[in-house]
Amino acid sequence: MFITFEGIDFCGKSTQVELLKNYFEKKGKTVKVIREPGGTEISEKIRDILLDKKNNKMFMETELLLFSASRAQLVREKIIPFLKEGSVVISDRFHDSSTAYQGFGRGLPVEAVLNVHKLAIGETIPDITFIIDIPVSVAVERKALKTHQELDRIEVSSNDFFEKVRNGYLSLAKNEKRFRIINGTKSIEEIHKLIINYIEDFEQS
Amino acid sequence: MFITFEGIDFCGKSTQVELLKNYFEKKGKTVKVIREPGGTEISEKIRDILLDKKNNKMFMETELLLFSASRAQLVREKIIPFLKEGSVVISDRFHDSSTAYQGFGRGLPVEAVLNVHKLAIGETIPDITFIIDIPVSVAVERKALKTHQELDRIEVSSNDFFEKVRNGYLSLAKNEKRFRIINGTKSIEEIHKLIINYIEDFEQS
Repeated sequence: MFITFEGIDFCGKSTQVELLKNYFEKKGKTVKVIREPGGTEISEKIRDILLDKKNNKMFMETELLLFSASRAQLVREKIIPFLKEGSVVISDRFHDSSTAYQGFGRGLPVEAVLNVHKLAIGETIPDITFIIDIPVSVAVERKALKTHQELDRIEVSSNDFFEKVRNGYLSLAKNEKRFRIINGTKSIEEIHKLIINYIEDFEQS
Repeated sequence: MFITFEGIDFCGKSTQVELLKNYFEKKGKTVKVIREPGGTEISEKIRDILLDKKNNKMFMETELLLFSASRAQLVREKIIPFLKEGSVVISDRFHDSSTAYQGFGRGLPVEAVLNVHKLAIGETIPDITFIIDIPVSVAVERKALKTHQELDRIEVSSNDFFEKVRNGYLSLAKNEKRFRIINGTKSIEEIHKLIINYIEDFEQS
C-alpha cells in the first residue's frame, strides 16, 4: 500500500505520518516512511538546492523540474522496490504537492505539471492521499512559533500563495477517488482516528 | 541571434564556440557564451550533481529533469535578458542535447522529452543549431588522450550509447530547419569557415 500525506505547510502532516507508521508496525507490517523532497542520496542534494533561502532567484519552472527530478529518483530507487517487497510506503508529500504548489500556487499551467508527473512517477500513483486541510490563518499562527531562520525557502512564502495552494488541493480532490480530506484543526488524536477509519475502509474494499 | 552547438562528446564544439565568439566580437557585436549544464548559480549546483561520477545510480528520468531544471533557470535568468539587450548568445549544448542523450541515447520516449522542453525553454528556441558530427570511432580516439579521472559521468558512457546519440542528432536534423550538420573530422579552420558561411547566409535571409 502506498499512502501519501498532503497539505499546506504547518498542517500537521508529519505528526500523522509518524502515528500511522506506529499503527502499521503494531499490526506487524513493514513500513517505509519517506519525506519529499529527498529520500535518496541524489534527491537529498536536490533538496538542498530547493530549500536553500539563498536561491531566491529560482524560477517556478526550475522549481517544478527539481522537485520532479528528486521524485523520479525516489520512485525508482526506493518506492518501487519497497512496494515490491510488500512494505507499506508512507510519503510526507508527493506529486500532488507539485501540482498544488508549483501549479495552483505559483501559476504554472496545471496541464504542464501533470505532464511532468507522467514522466517523473509513471504508474506509481498513491492508493490513498490524505489532505490535512487547515485555513491559512491557522498555518500563520503555527508558523509564528518559529523564527525566520528556522523556515525554508518555500515556508517563507506569502499568505496569498498558501491560499492558492490550499484551494489547489481542494480542487485536486474533486478529480480523483484516492483523496481523503481531513479537517486539520481537530486534535491530533481525532485526526489519527479518522485516518485509521479510512485505512480500514480501504483495506476492506 | 541565438546559436547553439551540438554533437557527441569530443566532437570539437567548444573550440568552435570560441572561434565564433571572436568572429562576432571583431564585428563589434556583444557576445554571451553559455555552457550547459550550468551558467547560473543554481544551474552550476545542478551541474555538480549531474556530472559527479559518484552519482552512478541516477535514473534517466532524473537525469532529464535535472538537465531541464538547469536549462529552465538559464533561459529565464540569462538567455532571455541577453537576447533582449541585443547580444548574440552562443550556447555550448542546449535542449537538443537532452533529446539526443536522454531520449535517443538512454531510451526515454522522445515525445516525453519534447514535452519537458516545452516547459523548460518555452519559446526560446535557437535560430541556428550546428551539429558537429564525428563518427564514434573518432570520439574514441580523442577520448583516449584523457585519463579516466578527467572524464565526467556522461563522458565515460559506452560507445554503443554514443552511437545512439549521434544517430539521434542526425535524425533530429531532419525535422527542423534550424539545424546545420558539419563534418567534424575536417580541420578546425575549415569547420570555422563553414560555420561563418552558414551565419552569413542566415543574416542575409
